[in-house]
Amino acid sequence: MKLIDRIRYIASPRVLGLQPYKVESSECLVKLDAMENAHELPHSLREKWLASIENIAVNRYPDPTCSQLRSRLRLFMALDDSINMLFGNGSDEIINLMCLVASGGEGGSVLFPEPTFSVYRLSAEAHGLEVIGVSSRNEDFSCDIEEMLNVIRHKQPSLIFLASPNNPTGNSVDEESIIRLCAAADGLVILDEAYCKFAASSHVKLLSSIDNLLIMQTFSKIGFAGIRLGVLFGGHECIDLLDRVRMPYNVNSLTQATATFAIDHWEHFQATIDEIITQREGMIQFMVGLDSITVWPSDGNFVLFRPLSMASEHIYDELLNRGILVKNMSGGHPALLNCLRVTIGTEEENILFRETLIEILGREGV
Amino acid sequence: MKLIDRIRYIASPRVLGLQPYKVESSECLVKLDAMENAHELPHSLREKWLASIENIAVNRYPDPTCSQLRSRLRLFMALDDSINMLFGNGSDEIINLMCLVASGGEGGSVLFPEPTFSVYRLSAEAHGLEVIGVSSRNEDFSCDIEEMLNVIRHKQPSLIFLASPNNPTGNSVDEESIIRLCAAADGLVILDEAYCKFAASSHVKLLSSIDNLLIMQTFSKIGFAGIRLGVLFGGHECIDLLDRVRMPYNVNSLTQATATFAIDHWEHFQATIDEIITQREGMIQFMVGLDSITVWPSDGNFVLFRPLSMASEHIYDELLNRGILVKNMSGGHPALLNCLRVTIGTEEENILFRETLIEILGREGV
Repeated sequence: MKLIDRIRYIASPRVLGLQPYKVESSECLVKLDAMENAHELPHSLREKWLASIENIAVNRYPDPTCSQLRSRLRLFMALDDSINMLFGNGSDEIINLMCLVASGGEGGSVLFPEPTFSVYRLSAEAHGLEVIGVSSRNEDFSCDIEEMLNVIRHKQPSLIFLASPNNPTGNSVDEESIIRLCAAADGLVILDEAYCKFAASSHVKLLSSIDNLLIMQTFSKIGFAGIRLGVLFGGHECIDLLDRVRMPYNVNSLTQATATFAIDHWEHFQATIDEIITQREGMIQFMVGLDSITVWPSDGNFVLFRPLSMASEHIYDELLNRGILVKNMSGGHPALLNCLRVTIGTEEENILFRETLIEILGREGV
Repeated sequence: MKLIDRIRYIASPRVLGLQPYKVESSECLVKLDAMENAHELPHSLREKWLASIENIAVNRYPDPTCSQLRSRLRLFMALDDSINMLFGNGSDEIINLMCLVASGGEGGSVLFPEPTFSVYRLSAEAHGLEVIGVSSRNEDFSCDIEEMLNVIRHKQPSLIFLASPNNPTGNSVDEESIIRLCAAADGLVILDEAYCKFAASSHVKLLSSIDNLLIMQTFSKIGFAGIRLGVLFGGHECIDLLDRVRMPYNVNSLTQATATFAIDHWEHFQATIDEIITQREGMIQFMVGLDSITVWPSDGNFVLFRPLSMASEHIYDELLNRGILVKNMSGGHPALLNCLRVTIGTEEENILFRETLIEILGREGV
C-alpha cells in the first residue's frame, strides 16, 4: 500500500484538510507580533527565579495536581472554595481539552464571535465539531450579542468561546452581555481573559453565581510566554469533566515553579503591565493623529490599525526590512482587510516603531 | 437547565465514561513506582544546567520547531535526512495527537498487545476509537504476534501501538516481528521505545526502510521526567500529518534547553543508565533466589514480580508503611493478578527495598 493511501485510510478528512499553524520567523531586532511582554526579567529577579528552580528534582515526574501553584494562585486571586482550577500546557491545551470533551457529544458545535483568536476554530475543526462564527456587524468590532443569542437559541452549541479583551480587535464584552449569553446557553461559555490584566478587569467573580461559565487566563501575556501555562477557572463539576481527559503530567515542574515565582513577585510584573498600558495609550494617540491610519481602541497589550492609502502587506514588509516584526491581519477575516496588529513593546521599541512607520508612510504615501 | 444535564448534553458518552488518570501520592522516603531515574543531577552538572537556562527569554514564546534541540538530537542519533521528528509534551501528548488524527478516519480502531502502558487505551477511548487489545497467551508475557497479525488482516486498525521494552512486563519484541507487523498493516505502527536505553537497543534504523513505522522515545526515564519531553521519529509524510494537529508552542523553552543540555552531557546520563542496568540484574537475581516470588526478566528500568503466598496489596501496603512506594499492578489486566512492579532506584534504595521485602515476606509468609 502506498504511504499516501495509508494516510488517507488512517486520518479523518477533517484532519487532512487542516494546515499546520504557521509561526513566522522572528529573527529580527524588534518583535512586536505575538503579544509577549517585552520587559525581560531584571538581573536581580532572574537570580531569584533561578534560586526557585535550582533544586527541582527534574528526574521526577511533575506534581500532577500543581498543588503549590494552585494554593498560591487561589490565595492571590482570593478564590472562594466553590471555584476550582485546571492548568494546561498553555491555553491551547485547555481549548483542545474542551473540544475533545465535546467531540461526539450531543451538542456537537462551537460558537464564537469573529474575528477572534484563531485556535478556537482550529481546535474545533480538528475535533470534528461544527464551527459557527458570528461576525461583528459594527465598525468598532463589538460582539453582535443579539445574533449570538439567536444562534444559541436555535443551535444550542456545546461550547461558546468569548475572548474579552478580544484578539486582534482589542475590544471587551460587557458583563451584562456575558450574563445574558450564559443564561441563554445550555452549553458552556468559556470567557477567555488572556488580556484581562491590560483591561484592569476580570469577571472571575461571576463564577460563583453562573454554573455554566468558565474563565480562562494565561501567563503568556504577562511575561511568561516561554513556560506555557494556561489556567481555567470554574465550578468543580465542569473542571472535573475536563480532568477526565487531561493527561496527569501535562504541566512540567519548571513551569509550575516559575509560575509560583511570578505570583510571589507580582509587584514587578504589575509594574510592567502598568507601563504597557501607558505605552498603549500613547500608541493609540499617536495613530489617532495620523490621517492615513484608522486605529481602534484597545483593552489589550496590542493595537489594531488600518493604513488607508497603502497596502498592509507593504507596511509589513517595510517594517520587517527595518527589523521590526508586526502581524499582518489581512487575508484572514474580511473585516480585517488591510489591517495590521502591533504588540506594545518597551518604550524604546514603541518609539522606534512609530518613527519607522512615519518614515514608511511619509516616504511613499500619506 | 441543571448543570448535570448541561454536562450530559455537552460531553460525549465516551468521555462521561472515563475516569481521571489516578496518580498516587508520593510523599514517601523511597519512590520506586514511576520508572524515574533516581539519580539526581550532581552539583557540578546542576550548575551547568542552570547556566544553560539562565538567559532564556521566558517572556517570549518558545521556538515552535525546537530547532536547536532538533539539530542536536539529529546529530547525536546520526539520523539520516529521510527521518523527521515531532516533539511532544511527553509521549502522552504524542499518543493523543496520533489518536486525534485517526478519530473520525476510515480505520477507526487502535490495536495493541496487553498488558501494556495504559495511556494507549485511555487516549483511544477518549478520542472515540475502537480499542482492540491482544492478550499474551504465554507465561512470559511475550507478544502474541500471530494473533496480532490475524487482527491486522481482518480489521486493519488505524494505529498499532507496540511498546518494546514493554511496560509493565519488561519484555521486548524482536525485530523480525516488528517487520512482519508493519508489512501486514495498512495503518501506522508506533513502536514505543520509552525504555530502549535500558535494553541497549533501538530500532530507529528500521525507519529508513519501513514507511508506516514510527518510533517514540522519551526523556522521562533517563533523568528528565519533570520536563515532559517525548519525541516521535518517522518519515516526513507521517510527521507532517501529525504536525497538522500539533499546537505550535507545545514544548516550552525551559524543556527545549534542558533536553539540549542532557544531550550535551550524555556521558553522565549513560553512566546512570549503565548503573541501573547492573542494579536491575542484581534485583532479578535476588528475586530468583526467593521461593515465594515469581519474577520476570526485564529489559526496562523496572522489574515485575508476583508474591506466591501473600496478597500483592498487602506487600504494597507494608512497603508503603515503611516509606517505600511501588506499583501494585493487580486489578488491571488479569494476567497481572497479584503482581507488583518495582522501579530500579539507586543502590541504597534497592538494598533498602530488598531488605524490607525480605522482612515483610519473612515475618508473615514464606
